[in-house]
Amino acid sequence: MTTQEIFKQIVTKKSFLCVGLDSDINKLPQCLKNTTDSVFAFNKAIVDATAKYSIAYKPNLAFYESNGISGWQSLEKTVNYIKQNYPDIFLIADAKRGDIGNTSKMYAQAFFEKLPFDAVTVAPYMGEDSVSPFLTYKDKFVILLALTSNKGANDFQFFENNVHDKLFEQVLRTSQKWATSEQMMYVVGATRAEMLADVRKIVPNHFLLVPGVGAQGGSLSEVAKYGMNNQCGLIVNSSRAIIFADSTDKFAQRAEEEAIKVQIEMRELLKEKKII
Amino acid sequence: MTTQEIFKQIVTKKSFLCVGLDSDINKLPQCLKNTTDSVFAFNKAIVDATAKYSIAYKPNLAFYESNGISGWQSLEKTVNYIKQNYPDIFLIADAKRGDIGNTSKMYAQAFFEKLPFDAVTVAPYMGEDSVSPFLTYKDKFVILLALTSNKGANDFQFFENNVHDKLFEQVLRTSQKWATSEQMMYVVGATRAEMLADVRKIVPNHFLLVPGVGAQGGSLSEVAKYGMNNQCGLIVNSSRAIIFADSTDKFAQRAEEEAIKVQIEMRELLKEKKII
Repeated sequence: MTTQEIFKQIVTKKSFLCVGLDSDINKLPQCLKNTTDSVFAFNKAIVDATAKYSIAYKPNLAFYESNGISGWQSLEKTVNYIKQNYPDIFLIADAKRGDIGNTSKMYAQAFFEKLPFDAVTVAPYMGEDSVSPFLTYKDKFVILLALTSNKGANDFQFFENNVHDKLFEQVLRTSQKWATSEQMMYVVGATRAEMLADVRKIVPNHFLLVPGVGAQGGSLSEVAKYGMNNQCGLIVNSSRAIIFADSTDKFAQRAEEEAIKVQIEMRELLKEKKII
Repeated sequence: MTTQEIFKQIVTKKSFLCVGLDSDINKLPQCLKNTTDSVFAFNKAIVDATAKYSIAYKPNLAFYESNGISGWQSLEKTVNYIKQNYPDIFLIADAKRGDIGNTSKMYAQAFFEKLPFDAVTVAPYMGEDSVSPFLTYKDKFVILLALTSNKGANDFQFFENNVHDKLFEQVLRTSQKWATSEQMMYVVGATRAEMLADVRKIVPNHFLLVPGVGAQGGSLSEVAKYGMNNQCGLIVNSSRAIIFADSTDKFAQRAEEEAIKVQIEMRELLKEKKII
């Protein structure tokens, strides 16, 4: 997938919403408990209910790996279902991987060959050769962690050198030498929306994947204010606030309603910026 | 497992060798190609041949995930086989995980509950709450990336503040507030053996997992010189140089020979330090 195709979806759907499939088996609605592969059944219902309002889905690998082999089966069925039925959707493996070159190459195979993901989130700590194996695939993206939405982001991401460059800024600057905005995006948390202005000074054109809106408390209008560029440049993720909006047999309908609420807000923000 | 139990194994086996199960399906000996679950068959043969000389095994998750569901099956069979047949062995998931708290909690479940690992490698970029969910398990370890063995380590790990503290030093210092040496170890690459002296100034007592000996070119005697403490404090990993020492039907025997070579060198280093 290219950024142009992502932008086309944004304009068509008037949305830049990514739905995070953090499909915790312990939180699934009671009505699915006796279903074979309840995680897949849940994801399928959520995707069918929200795909009109979403440009991307982001399965969070931890929630599948915690179920062992059956979790990996649910993941594979989910991403194949999405790719077959909604081929325009941008499919992100939220995996936070990154290892020495020969190992990152195997992770790239796992997500880009064995599974049909368009992008994978990667941690920057191990540097260029831990990232570059993911960049050898045409029209696939690395989404590199820059500034995350959690409290622990303060521990190292703001570590500062003698000219007041922070680690996350160094990550943004250095990694731009590795790939263009057609191969790389960045994770920047919505819980630090005002920081998006600093981020945009360094990476004006790259797409940013923004988690932290919804359950984590980030504000969508603030994110748009500081982070939106003239190609939108934002993919804003919401997980729990949409997929677990309701725990009865109305869960899919309630997820759809929550996705619509977000999409309506996004449509207004896109209009304000004259993108649509 | 406790560090005392690890130390007991070091003394008994006169070894601090960890064998890395980077079991690339494309590199398996021809004689295993038609075996059902050739990766598991390979791992079983390698483990049976080397367990007398090794204190730890370290499956590298990427090499299993790249095979999808069947890879996860091979992994599960491998770690269950090791735990059942060699209960004293320290079992490390080389996974380089790390995410926001509710997600790291699921990774911890994956490796410590669903699978019987004793330790998991974790990337520090996202800070304390990305690490702490792994620390809630008694006698299980986080092995935090500090200084890695690859070229890309130079990109960010040496990023320096105004008092010349480097990022990897900051990681070592800060993370010591999160856990004791009974819950935390650190990854420090053998390709930078002289840096182990600096690392030991900050973490004199913690066990260090040292990759990079063997195929990556690190020197075992240098690692011992700069990194060994009076409880050994080292778990030195070798992957390819042992498991892929030979590609014929003699592969297990040749792996054993390579493991013995390393063990003999380790025995001498332990004697020099008067640990045995």
